[in-house]
Amino acid sequence: MTHPTTFKPGSDADIHKIDPRHVEGDWDKESAAAQIEENTAKSRELAYKLYAEDRRALLVVLQGMDTAGKDGTIRVVMTGINPQTFQIKSFKQPSETELDHDFLWRIHNAVPRRGNIGVFNRSHYEDVLVVRVHNLVPEDEWRKRYDKINAFEELLVEGGVTLMKCFLHVSKEEQRERLQSRLDEPHKRWKFSRADLAERLLWDDYQKAYEDALTKCNTKDAPWHIVPSDRKWYRNLVVSQLLLETLEGMDPQFPAPEAGLDGIVVE
Amino acid sequence: MTHPTTFKPGSDADIHKIDPRHVEGDWDKESAAAQIEENTAKSRELAYKLYAEDRRALLVVLQGMDTAGKDGTIRVVMTGINPQTFQIKSFKQPSETELDHDFLWRIHNAVPRRGNIGVFNRSHYEDVLVVRVHNLVPEDEWRKRYDKINAFEELLVEGGVTLMKCFLHVSKEEQRERLQSRLDEPHKRWKFSRADLAERLLWDDYQKAYEDALTKCNTKDAPWHIVPSDRKWYRNLVVSQLLLETLEGMDPQFPAPEAGLDGIVVE
Repeated sequence: MTHPTTFKPGSDADIHKIDPRHVEGDWDKESAAAQIEENTAKSRELAYKLYAEDRRALLVVLQGMDTAGKDGTIRVVMTGINPQTFQIKSFKQPSETELDHDFLWRIHNAVPRRGNIGVFNRSHYEDVLVVRVHNLVPEDEWRKRYDKINAFEELLVEGGVTLMKCFLHVSKEEQRERLQSRLDEPHKRWKFSRADLAERLLWDDYQKAYEDALTKCNTKDAPWHIVPSDRKWYRNLVVSQLLLETLEGMDPQFPAPEAGLDGIVVE
Repeated sequence: MTHPTTFKPGSDADIHKIDPRHVEGDWDKESAAAQIEENTAKSRELAYKLYAEDRRALLVVLQGMDTAGKDGTIRVVMTGINPQTFQIKSFKQPSETELDHDFLWRIHNAVPRRGNIGVFNRSHYEDVLVVRVHNLVPEDEWRKRYDKINAFEELLVEGGVTLMKCFLHVSKEEQRERLQSRLDEPHKRWKFSRADLAERLLWDDYQKAYEDALTKCNTKDAPWHIVPSDRKWYRNLVVSQLLLETLEGMDPQFPAPEAGLDGIVVE
């Protein structure tokens, strides 16, 4: 499959024109699950080679509205890869210490080391999303952040970090259903927070902030992927495929052994 | 299965009397693999509940001689658990910055947060193992570290961290075979380092250091487990079983939902 997730750098990220229920090709839930399993087996091998090679890193950035499925994507797509080869980092509200630094300080600190895959569950993009929607810093400050983010990501790319940035695109109606089911299904209720309802009222502001972030930070070396996410199985399939294709593109290799090992006998 | 991995606090850890090829019960490679798969499925659910509960943490410490299989244990036992619920931390030679602090500073910093499982691939025990064998600090300094480790682990336990400390016990002959196979099998050769041969010459010193560490730091609340590890499949089975039993003992629970959610309709 080649789901068209990217869009041209410099062009607008018209997410309101992209159908979150879209399915490219003939996939259904069952065939997608089988494909994900196959992808995971291949990604596991490539992740191990990346780890052995110990020269480069992969950073997966997951962003999306509440309930878009960042946690679910990690659970389905990343479970089954040797955890020694990667780390998940969830970014929540910054601590006082983190706020005592520039907004990229805590992000930089969490960038995956050589040989590893890092997954950011939310990221520095929150600093032009929630921060913008809630006016947590003045407009002339957040407006400058897009360029800073691009410069930061360029630094990472040149330092050997491949970026795979995914926007999990859900509809407002799908979010409504998912929030309601957290209320209605007893075993999901612990996940529900009233704060989610308050955020939902700001839906349009968030969509606009996402469009700007995706448009302004969609560079050749660090492109955004827009992942239709109203169907969980399709969202998982697309991210699984992107992960595999990204690792295949990196083409990691086992390192050369030390020279002169021939004939050594261990006593 | 109930493999007897623990020994009485206050008694000696006579690892030289424990057969690294020992198998308790009727297990073989196939039945062990099936059991590990079953255990992983259960541990995955419990890890998710621990994560949802968000009150306590589990810290798995893996120690063992070179080639004992710390990496292999992580790969087999931990792959298949949602990586969002845990992190692996490998401790290598301390950096200059780390050496500018006491030996527990970098360890403390890596302790898993609430709701998470942390796995230490090597740990603070290296500071009474390699440090002792190579005289990296004076004897009167490393001798004091056992008590410091016990006090530190008590702090963790009282702070809600359950400890599961595993010594992967291999024989000198098994290590010889594993090192030789890294030399002889081309796809494994990148793992071989001449430094491993130099360390192997210090086998007896390491065994003595391990016996002391296990004896002195085998407390009621943070006991050591001695895992026969010459047979990889049995080692994996025992650690898998210990992980499951530890999580079952913690018995994590989904948190209570916010009060007053009945009847809310999401608009």
